[in-house]
Amino acid sequence: MAFIDHIHACNRWDPADFIPFRVAGERLGLVRRRFADDLARLGRDFRLSSDQLYWATAPDGFDARTAAFRAICADLEGRGLVSHLHGERYPVTARNRADARFLIDRACAPYFGVRAFGQHLNGYVRTADGLAMWVPRRSASRRVFPNHWDNTVAGGLPFGVGLADNLRKECWEEAHMPAELADQAVAVGAVCYCRDSDRGLKPDLMYCYDLELPADFTPRCNDDEVEAFYLWPIEQVIETVRDTDQFKLNCNLVIIDFLIRHGLISQDDPDYLGLIQGLRAPLP
Amino acid sequence: MAFIDHIHACNRWDPADFIPFRVAGERLGLVRRRFADDLARLGRDFRLSSDQLYWATAPDGFDARTAAFRAICADLEGRGLVSHLHGERYPVTARNRADARFLIDRACAPYFGVRAFGQHLNGYVRTADGLAMWVPRRSASRRVFPNHWDNTVAGGLPFGVGLADNLRKECWEEAHMPAELADQAVAVGAVCYCRDSDRGLKPDLMYCYDLELPADFTPRCNDDEVEAFYLWPIEQVIETVRDTDQFKLNCNLVIIDFLIRHGLISQDDPDYLGLIQGLRAPLP
Repeated sequence: MAFIDHIHACNRWDPADFIPFRVAGERLGLVRRRFADDLARLGRDFRLSSDQLYWATAPDGFDARTAAFRAICADLEGRGLVSHLHGERYPVTARNRADARFLIDRACAPYFGVRAFGQHLNGYVRTADGLAMWVPRRSASRRVFPNHWDNTVAGGLPFGVGLADNLRKECWEEAHMPAELADQAVAVGAVCYCRDSDRGLKPDLMYCYDLELPADFTPRCNDDEVEAFYLWPIEQVIETVRDTDQFKLNCNLVIIDFLIRHGLISQDDPDYLGLIQGLRAPLP
Repeated sequence: MAFIDHIHACNRWDPADFIPFRVAGERLGLVRRRFADDLARLGRDFRLSSDQLYWATAPDGFDARTAAFRAICADLEGRGLVSHLHGERYPVTARNRADARFLIDRACAPYFGVRAFGQHLNGYVRTADGLAMWVPRRSASRRVFPNHWDNTVAGGLPFGVGLADNLRKECWEEAHMPAELADQAVAVGAVCYCRDSDRGLKPDLMYCYDLELPADFTPRCNDDEVEAFYLWPIEQVIETVRDTDQFKLNCNLVIIDFLIRHGLISQDDPDYLGLIQGLRAPLP
């Protein structure tokens, strides 16, 4: 295995499997052909035309559209066309979070190939032996990637909450980190990828943060999402990312970005160009 | 103006204006149609076929090929088909520096659309008022971008010298920086872009470095490339990059990358995704 394998794994999708999802003249996502056929066959809200899926009954206005789509998703869940509802609302946008046209249940976003936004933080400590990173193990009960290693703090970005506020909230919920500490996180960029998942397509933008933690701070779980935190020497992080699939898939990318920014992946690595470009993949 | 304008300015080229430059079955660059016609018309080393330019007389082997191409470039300079010769040798490669097929004079590289490699270092100081950056002004006698602001240290990467050695050399030549200090530079990634220049096409990979400098170190010029160094508060750097064309074109990108990694460009900037992807443009 090599670092670049994770880039490829996160960017696996075939454009031929998906068609545009259009609302009021805009392409807001991409839907799998099979799912588009299922929706059109219902003969209610969706219409297929020229190899594109249209939400034909979309009302005007953000709130009305959000309410109508909420009812549609509940119906689709009842019919088994979407696996479940999550409860959190994501913006439906072809660009930035601020340009949301309406909201969609987080679990339904990939079915419609809607752009997802998240925040991922690497908490590290400078020790006499070099860098060390706080690595949590996801609990066995998690729906996706149970028992896998994760970024120190990571979470999706619901609509209507600012980046700083949401980071503070996630830091507290996931690592029992007080706001004063969370606020010291440095925004260091973003990583993006697009992947064909079971449920559909996930074009994902992960805002990245580095947080240097004091040696006397120990993160601990505030909820049941994390089993325990471990402080790993950076060499162990490097080897586990490079040689295994033990990290949650997209977390590998956030760590590779960290390693590149900290000079921990050699610029002579033959994959270097592929890595730096691959961490900023085009989003459809 | 906005940061993103520099990304666009650095990535201005029309693929329709260029055709592949092929040697021994490999595409190693891209040549402007007009230049390809001129070369083919000489009726000696180059041949046009199926909208591609072939070096038809390329001998086997790295050294023989390098010697033959050196003679060709000298001839082209004599005919006025290339503007000048630089003297430094660049690798001709469609991938990494290590995969060089032969060498080309640095000034001739863009004529053949050969991938260029460079190193750019931002030297900064942590002050009580925040970050400050050492910014040199290029001398009035420079061939390109005279009197423009530059990255603290920046230079092309000739063939056969390692990244660390070349950085040390550039740091000494351009800023009178001792090796012990230069060695503290942190490799933080790379920026790439591709631009139609007067001479041809420049697909460029710039290896980037951050170097935190002690408050009592003052860079000074060792040669006549730099007129003088100035220590600017980071706000002045931000404003000059964002609002003016006073920096050498590609240096803007290296500073934008610095600003993003240090949390100095807001993640709420509507161009944020465009910036992070634009700093890692695909190379042809």
